[in-house]
Amino acid sequence: MTVTAGILGATGAVGQRLIQLLDPHPEFEITTLTASDQSAGHPYRDVAKWRVDAPIPDDIATMTVRETTPDAIDDDVDLLFSSLPSSVGERVEPKLCNAGYVVSSNSSNDRTAPDVPLTIPEVNAEHLDVLEVQRDERGWDGALVKNPNCSTITMVPTLAALDQFNIQSVTVSTLQAVSGAGYSGVSSMEIIDNAIPHIGGEEQKMEREARKLLGTFDGAEIDWHEMDVAASCNRIPTIDGHLENVWVDTDDEIAPETAAAAMTEYPSLSLASSPEQLIEVCDDPDRPQPRLDRLRGNGMAVSAGGFRATAGGIQYNCLSHNTIRGAAGASVLNGELLLNQGWL
Amino acid sequence: MTVTAGILGATGAVGQRLIQLLDPHPEFEITTLTASDQSAGHPYRDVAKWRVDAPIPDDIATMTVRETTPDAIDDDVDLLFSSLPSSVGERVEPKLCNAGYVVSSNSSNDRTAPDVPLTIPEVNAEHLDVLEVQRDERGWDGALVKNPNCSTITMVPTLAALDQFNIQSVTVSTLQAVSGAGYSGVSSMEIIDNAIPHIGGEEQKMEREARKLLGTFDGAEIDWHEMDVAASCNRIPTIDGHLENVWVDTDDEIAPETAAAAMTEYPSLSLASSPEQLIEVCDDPDRPQPRLDRLRGNGMAVSAGGFRATAGGIQYNCLSHNTIRGAAGASVLNGELLLNQGWL
Amino acid sequence: MTVTAGILGATGAVGQRLIQLLDPHPEFEITTLTASDQSAGHPYRDVAKWRVDAPIPDDIATMTVRETTPDAIDDDVDLLFSSLPSSVGERVEPKLCNAGYVVSSNSSNDRTAPDVPLTIPEVNAEHLDVLEVQRDERGWDGALVKNPNCSTITMVPTLAALDQFNIQSVTVSTLQAVSGAGYSGVSSMEIIDNAIPHIGGEEQKMEREARKLLGTFDGAEIDWHEMDVAASCNRIPTIDGHLENVWVDTDDEIAPETAAAAMTEYPSLSLASSPEQLIEVCDDPDRPQPRLDRLRGNGMAVSAGGFRATAGGIQYNCLSHNTIRGAAGASVLNGELLLNQGWL
Amino acid sequence: MTVTAGILGATGAVGQRLIQLLDPHPEFEITTLTASDQSAGHPYRDVAKWRVDAPIPDDIATMTVRETTPDAIDDDVDLLFSSLPSSVGERVEPKLCNAGYVVSSNSSNDRTAPDVPLTIPEVNAEHLDVLEVQRDERGWDGALVKNPNCSTITMVPTLAALDQFNIQSVTVSTLQAVSGAGYSGVSSMEIIDNAIPHIGGEEQKMEREARKLLGTFDGAEIDWHEMDVAASCNRIPTIDGHLENVWVDTDDEIAPETAAAAMTEYPSLSLASSPEQLIEVCDDPDRPQPRLDRLRGNGMAVSAGGFRATAGGIQYNCLSHNTIRGAAGASVLNGELLLNQGWL
Repeated sequence: MTVTAGILGATGAVGQRLIQLLDPHPEFEITTLTASDQSAGHPYRDVAKWRVDAPIPDDIATMTVRETTPDAIDDDVDLLFSSLPSSVGERVEPKLCNAGYVVSSNSSNDRTAPDVPLTIPEVNAEHLDVLEVQRDERGWDGALVKNPNCSTITMVPTLAALDQFNIQSVTVSTLQAVSGAGYSGVSSMEIIDNAIPHIGGEEQKMEREARKLLGTFDGAEIDWHEMDVAASCNRIPTIDGHLENVWVDTDDEIAPETAAAAMTEYPSLSLASSPEQLIEVCDDPDRPQPRLDRLRGNGMAVSAGGFRATAGGIQYNCLSHNTIRGAAGASVLNGELLLNQGWL
Repeated sequence: MTVTAGILGATGAVGQRLIQLLDPHPEFEITTLTASDQSAGHPYRDVAKWRVDAPIPDDIATMTVRETTPDAIDDDVDLLFSSLPSSVGERVEPKLCNAGYVVSSNSSNDRTAPDVPLTIPEVNAEHLDVLEVQRDERGWDGALVKNPNCSTITMVPTLAALDQFNIQSVTVSTLQAVSGAGYSGVSSMEIIDNAIPHIGGEEQKMEREARKLLGTFDGAEIDWHEMDVAASCNRIPTIDGHLENVWVDTDDEIAPETAAAAMTEYPSLSLASSPEQLIEVCDDPDRPQPRLDRLRGNGMAVSAGGFRATAGGIQYNCLSHNTIRGAAGASVLNGELLLNQGWL
Repeated sequence: MTVTAGILGATGAVGQRLIQLLDPHPEFEITTLTASDQSAGHPYRDVAKWRVDAPIPDDIATMTVRETTPDAIDDDVDLLFSSLPSSVGERVEPKLCNAGYVVSSNSSNDRTAPDVPLTIPEVNAEHLDVLEVQRDERGWDGALVKNPNCSTITMVPTLAALDQFNIQSVTVSTLQAVSGAGYSGVSSMEIIDNAIPHIGGEEQKMEREARKLLGTFDGAEIDWHEMDVAASCNRIPTIDGHLENVWVDTDDEIAPETAAAAMTEYPSLSLASSPEQLIEVCDDPDRPQPRLDRLRGNGMAVSAGGFRATAGGIQYNCLSHNTIRGAAGASVLNGELLLNQGWL
Repeated sequence: MTVTAGILGATGAVGQRLIQLLDPHPEFEITTLTASDQSAGHPYRDVAKWRVDAPIPDDIATMTVRETTPDAIDDDVDLLFSSLPSSVGERVEPKLCNAGYVVSSNSSNDRTAPDVPLTIPEVNAEHLDVLEVQRDERGWDGALVKNPNCSTITMVPTLAALDQFNIQSVTVSTLQAVSGAGYSGVSSMEIIDNAIPHIGGEEQKMEREARKLLGTFDGAEIDWHEMDVAASCNRIPTIDGHLENVWVDTDDEIAPETAAAAMTEYPSLSLASSPEQLIEVCDDPDRPQPRLDRLRGNGMAVSAGGFRATAGGIQYNCLSHNTIRGAAGASVLNGELLLNQGWL
C-alpha cells in the first residue's frame, strides 16, 4: 500500500530536498505540491528555481502547484510534509490538522509546545504518543509532529548516546552551512572570506529543543532534561553540512574511548530512511569535515570524532547534513515513524 | 636614534607581514633579511613569492637575503624579529642570543619555558623582567622574547579584562583563517566548501599559553593562572582574521554589560604600534566578523561582541587579525616594549 | 571653495563606497543622503546595513536620510552622485536635471542615449561637451553624466591604449566579483564552489558601451567605434575585483611587448582621484589577480598582464576594482571632471 | 572474463578517482596499486590521504602498494591506468610498454607524439589504430594510449559536434577548478577570494591537443586540424568542474539553435562508462554551472548552454567534471575502448 504525500512549501530549499528524497521513496508517493499564492496554478518547473545537483524528476516538473490551504489539498492525501516559513506554518498547520491531515513538519513554530511531539525517531520515538494528548486537547482528527532545528539534530544523537553517564551541561559551538538559511538567506557578500558569529534565535532553539528531545514522556507530559545547554552559532562559507564542537560535562566519569564506543553502539532503526549506522565515529582527529562526511549514510548519518578528556567530562566534534538529516530527511523519517506506528 | 632590525625567515607569510609593518616603522629600520640556504645570496624580490596586497617596498626588493646563522648577520643589528619554522627556531634562536642578539620571536618553540618571557605588552609587560633570570641562567648577552600563538593572542586580552571577576574556567572554539598556517599550510582542496575541526597542537598551545600569560611574575618565576582552559580549534575558508566563541566561568557574578564595559575600559599602551583602543566592543550581535573587523586599529585591535549570560558566567565572541596582531604585529610590539624598557 | 554633494541611493553597496570616497575628499563635501521612502527620515546609521571594512564616518552616521525627489534636496547642492537602481534612476534622474541639478550617475539607464555623455575621464573627456547638446535638446539647467558598467570600465582603458593599432574586434571573457551585483544580488548558495556563466544584460552593456566610449565626438554627435565586441560574462566567488581575459584583433601588427608598453605609457590625468599610473602592467604571467591587485592606485588603477601574440593580434588579462574604479570611484572621477571643466 | 587492472600513481587525486571508478567497474578488477618509493610496501590506507567523499573500498584499503616499475608489477596484469606526474610518466611509461603492458594514461607526457593515440572515444576512436604504427616503430609488445588534458576534454566534444560547419578558429576562456592541480597544487591562500589568470602550459596544451584530436588519421599518420585555437586559462575557487566560454568561427553560417541541436544529436557510445547523452544542452542561459552540472551522466557528460550568434559564428559555454570526464573517467573510457577494439 502506497501512502500519498503532499509537500507544503515545495519550491524552497528544503522543499526541493523533500522532492529529491520522496520521489524514489518506497512507501510515499508525492501527489500534491503547494507553494505561495503567486506560484499556485503553475507547473512546478516554472515556479521553482531548482538548485539540487540532479534534474527535477519528470513527473514533478509538470505537476501543478497548489495554494497552501486545506481547500486546495485533496482529502485523500495521507501525509503532509511541511517546510513552510514558520510565520506561515504557525497559521496554516493547525488549520490543516483541524481539517484532518497528518503533518510532519520542519517549520520552527510550535516545536516546544507541550502537546506537540518533537522527535528524532532513533532518540525519542516514544514521544510520538503525545499525539493522544494533542488530539484530546485540540480536538483534531489530524496530527502535528515536528523535527528539531538542523543544528539541534546534529548534536542530540551524540548526547543521547552519552546520557547514560548523566549529562550535567553541554557547551556547543556550531559552524553552519549557508543552505540552512534557505536560498536567499545568506548573501554572498556577507559570507565569502568571512564568518558570522550569530544566527538569530538559533542558540535559543538548540538550548531548548535539546532538553525537550532528551526529556521523558510519562504518558501525560514531557519532562525536559535538566542539563544546562549553552550554544554559540556561527555561519561559515560551506554549502551543506553543520559541524559542531561539543563539550559535555557528566556526573559519571567518561573516557574518550568510552564516549566513542557509546556512540558507535548507539542503535539505528529499520525505517526506510534510517542509516545502517546512526553515528559514524572517525579515527582521524581532523574528521568529520563538512564536504567529506556530510553524505555518510546517504546524508542521514551523524559523524563524530576528535574525542578528548576535559576537566569536567569530554569534548568532541560532530556533523550531519543539515538539509537531509537536519531538515528534509528528518521530516521524512518522522513520516516513516508515523506510518510505522499506525498514525496514518 | 634608529634601531636597526633584522628579519629571520623573511620570505614566509609572517616574514612578509613583518616587512610590511617595519618598512614604514618610526623606530625600526630593516637592515637584514634572512631565509633558507637556497634563498641566501639572492635579491629578496627573486626568492620571495610576495603575496601581500601592496607592492614590495623598493629598498627591500633589492636587498640580498642572508643565511639564518649568527655569522651571516652584522654585529651592529640591534634587534632580530624571528618568524622561523619552530624546528629551525629551536636550533638557531639560542645560538643568536648566545652571540648577543636580542630576538623578538613569533616561533612556537620555547614559549612555555620558565625563563622565556611570553608577552602581550598590554597584558603582561612585567613578565619581560624574566629576562634577568634568562641571562643569569643561560649566560646570554642577548635575549629571547616570545609572543603567543595567534589564536591565544585573540582571546587573552579579553580574559585579562575579565579576570577581575576571578576566572575559573574558559571554553573556547576557534574559527581560524588559512593564513595562520602559512602559504602552503592549507591546500585549497582541503578547505573550499569545508571546515577542518583540528589544528595539530593548537589546542594545547591555547590551553597552556593563556595560563602563562595571565600568570604572576614574582621576580623569580611565573606562577601560571590556575584556570582550566579547554579549546577546540577549527580551520575555515577565510584568508585573515581568527574568530573565537568564548565561554568564561567566573567566581564572581558578571552581567553581559559589565563584561563589555570591562573590555572597553581595558587600557592600551602608547607604544608605536599600539591601537588607540585595545578591545573594540561591537553593538551588533552579528559582529565581529573576520572580513569586516580584522583591520580595526590597523589590525592591532581585538574586537568583541555577542555578550550573553550563561549558567556559570558569560559567553562572547572575539576576533583579531591573525598575521598582524596575532603574529608579525605581536613581534613588532614586543620589540617596541624591549626598546621602551631599555633592553636594546 | 568646497563643492557640496549629495548621494542618491546612499544605503546600497555603491552608495557606501561613495561615502567612503567622498568623506575625505579634498573638493567635495557630503551634505545630502537619499534613499528609499522607508529609509527617509531616519539617521543613516539606522537604515544602512554598513558593510565597508572601516567604520561609518561619524558625521555621516547621524545624518538624516532624505527621499529621492527634487523637493527633498536643498537647492544649494552643487552635485549629485547617483547609485540608484536603474529603474529608479530612469524615472528620477531626468526630474533632477530638469530641476537644475548636475548628476554624475553610475546607474545603467540612459548610458547609450545620444545626448548623454558616457565618460571615463582618462579615455574620452572630450565627450563631456555633449552636455551642450543635452541642454539644448532637453531644456535642462542641470546635466546628466554617466560612467560605464564596471566590467566595461575595466577593459576600455586598455583598448584605448591599443587603438592606435586600429582595433578590428574584441573578444572578452569576464570573471566578476559578487559585489558587482549589490548586497543581495548573488546568494551564497548560488556561488560557493560555483561560477555562473551569465549576468543578465551585462554582455550587451560591454558590447555597446565600449564602442560608444571609444567613439568620436564631432561637436554634434558621437560616432561609435566600428569594432566588433563579443563578451561572455561570468560571476565567480570573489568579493571585489573584475578580472578579464581579452583578445584584440588589430589591423596593424602588434607584438606583446608593444602592447604592454602602450598601456604603461597611456597617460593618467591630474584629477583628485586619478591614479598616478592609469594602467599598471604586471611582469608575472599569473598577475593581475583580484585579491592582490584590486587596490592598486587606491582602487583607481587598472592592471594588465599575460600578454601573448595570437593569430589576429594580441591577448592579455586586465583587472580593476569593480566598486571603486568600476562604480563609485568612476562617478567621483566624473564629478571631478565636471568641476575641472567648469560645469558646476 | 574480467580484465585485471593496475593503477600507477594510485595515491594522488586522480589515482583516488580511478579507484572510485574502477572498484565497482563491470569489466575491470583492480589487482595492483603503485605509488612513490616511500609509499611502496605499505597498505594503501596508510599512505593515501584519502579525500574522496565516500570511504575507501575495503579491499583497496588493505592492498599493499608497490613501486612504479615493471619488476614490481605482475605479468598477468592486463591493463595499467597511469596518473603519474608527467616527469615520472615520461620515464616509466615507455619501459612498461616495452615490457609488454598496455597503458591508458592521463599523464601529459607524449600526448602530441605522432605515434601515440590521443583519444576521446566518442570523438576520434579511429585514432586508436595509430597503435599499429607505434608498435612497428618502437618495437613494443605493449601499447600507450593517452587522454587529453581536462580543459581540452571539456571543449573538444562540442567542437566535434560543430565541425560539420567547418571550424576556422576557436577562442576559449576557462574557469578551472582547483582539483585539476592535484591535492597540493593550489594553496588556499592563493585562491580564496581570488582567481589566477594563468596555468603554466595549460593554454598550449589546449591549443595543440584540440587540433590533434580533431585531426584525420589516414592509416599512417594524423593530420592535425588546421583551425586556430587561442586559449586563456584561469583558476577559480571551485572544487570540481571546469567551465569554459567558447567562441567558434566557422566557414559556414550557424545559428545558435543549430549549434545546440548539433550538440544534442552528437552520438555517445555504448562503452561501460559512456553517458547516455554525451552533450547535455541546458535551456537556462545561466547554466551549465560547476556545482550544479558537473555530475551529469555520472560525471561523464559534457554540458553546454548560453548559445549566442557572433559576427564570425557562435559563442557558448561548456562544462565537464575535470577529475572524472577530464581525467580518471577519460582513462577508464580509453581502457574500455582498448578492450572493445581487441587491444587487450
